[in-house]
Amino acid sequence: MDTPRACSVARSLEIVGERWSLLVLREVLLGVRRFADIQRHTGAPRAVLTQRLRRLVDAGILERRDYRPDGERTRQEYHPTPAGRELQPVLVALMQWGDRHLAGPDGPPVRMEHHDCGGAVHAHLVCEHGHALPGDGRGLRAVPRDVGAG
Amino acid sequence: MDTPRACSVARSLEIVGERWSLLVLREVLLGVRRFADIQRHTGAPRAVLTQRLRRLVDAGILERRDYRPDGERTRQEYHPTPAGRELQPVLVALMQWGDRHLAGPDGPPVRMEHHDCGGAVHAHLVCEHGHALPGDGRGLRAVPRDVGAG
Repeated sequence: MDTPRACSVARSLEIVGERWSLLVLREVLLGVRRFADIQRHTGAPRAVLTQRLRRLVDAGILERRDYRPDGERTRQEYHPTPAGRELQPVLVALMQWGDRHLAGPDGPPVRMEHHDCGGAVHAHLVCEHGHALPGDGRGLRAVPRDVGAG
Repeated sequence: MDTPRACSVARSLEIVGERWSLLVLREVLLGVRRFADIQRHTGAPRAVLTQRLRRLVDAGILERRDYRPDGERTRQEYHPTPAGRELQPVLVALMQWGDRHLAGPDGPPVRMEHHDCGGAVHAHLVCEHGHALPGDGRGLRAVPRDVGAG
């Protein structure tokens, strides 16, 4: 094999595999809509944020909408698309790893809860037959699509 | 709030929030151990790969082990640590998103299976009381740790 592995992880990372893109997505999924607020919450430099927002809009992850506050000029808000919302498990999985390995003495800064019951939410590995797999990937097997053909 | 949000997503991304780091981790979790093989499967430039491997070892995600093939010089292999293995849900979540949104006409290149039953494995959002949440994050609520104190 002399070309890089064909893989949906690699394709996903071409779009969101970079610190600022995922932090921007975190903000928009938390309901933050405006450039200045996204900038403040992420700490992204202005030029970087402009570029990342454009890229996320072009990739169909965010949608830009105009709004005009009373007496002010038209501004833009950023909303997640359905495809953008479906990145939520990636963020939850990153958060639970950071909570476990990087939280420090103060503990995790944010808790992800189920709105209905208040239970802590995690990203679990589950197979289509309903078996839960351990979070360290034991019991998981990667099968290239072309193996076993014919 | 004038400082960036305290968040385990951000802390995790400081370590793995970059395309090559997560692709290197993908390879090592797939069982690829040697520099040349990781380089070939990821397509990472040599200098970048050297730097990313060092960073992942320093962060306690990978472990470097010496080995010596018969009659050759000592070489290094890379193995995942327990903390590294626990990033598996992040990779599965990225893969399922790419499978769904970026797979193209050939379909997903790799299938993640449960070793025991062959069922396709996904990263699901589940609360501690056993409720399944939709993958688009509906029903999910982020609660800052200091809210509700006192």
